[in-house]
Amino acid sequence: MTMLQRLSTSDPDFADRLAALLAWESVSDDRVQQIVAEILRAVRTQGDAALLEYTTRFDRWTPTTPADLELPRARLEQAWHTIPAAQRQALDAAAERIRTYAEHQKLSGWSYRDADGTLLGQQVTPLDRAGLYVPGGKAAYPSSVLMNAIPAKVAGVGELIMVVPTPDGELNELVLAAAHVAGVDRAFAIGGAQAVAALAYGTATIPGVDKIVGPGNIYVATAKRAVFGQVGIDMVAGPSEILVICDGATDPDWIAMDLFSQAEHDEDAQSILVSWDAAFLDQVAASIERLLPTLERAPIIEAALRARGALIFARDLDDAIAVANQIAPEHLELSVADPEAIVGRIRHAGAIFMGRYTAEALGDYCAGPNHVLPTSRTARFSSPLGVYDFQKRSSLILASAAGSARLAQTASVLARGEGLTAHARSAEYRGECAP
Amino acid sequence: MTMLQRLSTSDPDFADRLAALLAWESVSDDRVQQIVAEILRAVRTQGDAALLEYTTRFDRWTPTTPADLELPRARLEQAWHTIPAAQRQALDAAAERIRTYAEHQKLSGWSYRDADGTLLGQQVTPLDRAGLYVPGGKAAYPSSVLMNAIPAKVAGVGELIMVVPTPDGELNELVLAAAHVAGVDRAFAIGGAQAVAALAYGTATIPGVDKIVGPGNIYVATAKRAVFGQVGIDMVAGPSEILVICDGATDPDWIAMDLFSQAEHDEDAQSILVSWDAAFLDQVAASIERLLPTLERAPIIEAALRARGALIFARDLDDAIAVANQIAPEHLELSVADPEAIVGRIRHAGAIFMGRYTAEALGDYCAGPNHVLPTSRTARFSSPLGVYDFQKRSSLILASAAGSARLAQTASVLARGEGLTAHARSAEYRGECAP
Repeated sequence: MTMLQRLSTSDPDFADRLAALLAWESVSDDRVQQIVAEILRAVRTQGDAALLEYTTRFDRWTPTTPADLELPRARLEQAWHTIPAAQRQALDAAAERIRTYAEHQKLSGWSYRDADGTLLGQQVTPLDRAGLYVPGGKAAYPSSVLMNAIPAKVAGVGELIMVVPTPDGELNELVLAAAHVAGVDRAFAIGGAQAVAALAYGTATIPGVDKIVGPGNIYVATAKRAVFGQVGIDMVAGPSEILVICDGATDPDWIAMDLFSQAEHDEDAQSILVSWDAAFLDQVAASIERLLPTLERAPIIEAALRARGALIFARDLDDAIAVANQIAPEHLELSVADPEAIVGRIRHAGAIFMGRYTAEALGDYCAGPNHVLPTSRTARFSSPLGVYDFQKRSSLILASAAGSARLAQTASVLARGEGLTAHARSAEYRGECAP
Repeated sequence: MTMLQRLSTSDPDFADRLAALLAWESVSDDRVQQIVAEILRAVRTQGDAALLEYTTRFDRWTPTTPADLELPRARLEQAWHTIPAAQRQALDAAAERIRTYAEHQKLSGWSYRDADGTLLGQQVTPLDRAGLYVPGGKAAYPSSVLMNAIPAKVAGVGELIMVVPTPDGELNELVLAAAHVAGVDRAFAIGGAQAVAALAYGTATIPGVDKIVGPGNIYVATAKRAVFGQVGIDMVAGPSEILVICDGATDPDWIAMDLFSQAEHDEDAQSILVSWDAAFLDQVAASIERLLPTLERAPIIEAALRARGALIFARDLDDAIAVANQIAPEHLELSVADPEAIVGRIRHAGAIFMGRYTAEALGDYCAGPNHVLPTSRTARFSSPLGVYDFQKRSSLILASAAGSARLAQTASVLARGEGLTAHARSAEYRGECAP
């Protein structure tokens, strides 16, 4: 008796069972909506005063003045020098690799001229100012600071503002050190929906930003959705997921540990293994039973595996790939002999970890690619967080006199076809006057 | 007495007056929310039956079977051959230019190897299936079909599904012809929130898609927001806007007509001119008074100009550029002698029309760049619709044995720092076994 569901793609009800396994709806009930709406309104109208009040109420410490909310850069630097050398080196090594990868993502402008001499192109610019939400307390992850902050800095964002709640006034030195090495410009000890509101609307103390990124609880997620439009936001993330495709020749303990590494995030996390080697599925199930008790976060892992984990028996490699494309997983491990031969057939996945040596956990921290990835099947239409999320494009058109005259003919016909005669005449003016 | 507000950047209350001028909130009241929620639920649970019912009720024609909802490709082709030759040629010329520009936007994958031999990269794939919403009735714009459909096809989207309501059963031949030339794969005569629901959830007749793009009324916009997450969506657009920066040497009639061309969209559209030549502002005001009565859509234009138009006197070019960056306009005309010298200083704009010959209307139809652009200051953080909106990225990592061992050291330190020991052990397994 294993704790993970066993499915086979040959089951007549496989499609339904898979859909049930993947089903996930984030719960943002009316109560949460109302509380968040009230907080947004208070911060929008009362600014810093509301921030002081909410910080006292929710984070249980009492800033005297709004200036108390700022964590000065010297404080971030102090954390950097205070943490153990091994952690400092690890943060530095991770930051360096994340930065190198991010540099490859940077978009550049381009232009060309058509036969009439008209210039057409695209200008790429960074955001003026971005906000980074970092959760406080237990879920405070320095790696998340690196992953969100570094692409923004590589994009050339003018000012990067971090907010991080400090419940009971407690600071996380690793988070502050990560902010230092990632190049965060200013940091504030605020959190929750009130921090999102402050970043979206600005207060006397907190600068308003153009986009807010970073994970948070249901209040933070609800607030981000509500301010979307006023500012940009990143994806609202669901629970973390891994799908492992294995040919049966990887050490089953390794695969078990990869499934654990996803499941240890929280009880809603999803770990799925698919293989066409039935004996291997049994071996991994046995590894899971044996290794689980040795893990610090065993209760969380067991709850996640029981609720949302699965071992799927596929007919063959092609069948396993079809399952992966159906699931569109956040993390996909191709734990097979020749991953490069099949990666081109993966149509949807946030990040693809190729080969037996590429543990997903390497990507969470330091391989280089971002660990902020599309969840809940949204890899069907969205991408990892990247430098491009902190850049935007402006179309460029510079019509030559001759080009303008020619374009005016087409524009005029179409504008009149749509009944928009001012459009037509605006175009025609240029055409008539072209040399 | 002019119908447009006159502002000067030197006014002590300029910032407040500009903010008031730009203020815009889309109204999606509780009643709309409730109606949309009910429609989404009905289509989700009853599928085609709900579509038939809503089409009868809202579009006032009665499909007998779900198959009646489809507009076969032969019908699109028939429209193509039926419209006047001048319109066919104009659609063809526009489609060709939009396609050529879109090809320049297409993202490609890339990869590199680090010193340890680890491969890092990004794989780019198109969406499997996209949905294009096209409004029916008065606001049915064939140019919008081209602008939304062509980037999807250039991206390589597997199947492009168009929905267009046909109020009282009335078809718009130009819209169908545009769908034909743009390469729409399937089309259905449905609209409103029910069409959005059908595309998001799929029914027996309407294939579910991965992303929905295209403009619509408040019900469509509200439905798109509601299904976001289940599928991707494009931006929810506000009213159209133009900002013209002019040095005073362009024919004032041309500038007046450019302002009209934006204002004729609807009463909420925004047309603003900024110049450091006070006499020129007067000349444009006079052109507006003189030309307005000659326009078919004069009542709409006048309402828009009175409600949201403005002539802004700036101190100099630098000041005008600062105003543009504050407004972050959807459309920006640089009607100046040397636009290339200043375009690099524009930080936020959807599309930039450079020089006296580049009427914004040329971009609406056929210059090449997309006319779906960020409105309401969202150009601070978002981009024109493009091929990249129909592509997504997957990160690639293939660690060499040596690379894995080295990465495992860093990952292990950071994972243990975060208390995630399964992550640490998953990485360490590989490190221990590396040759």
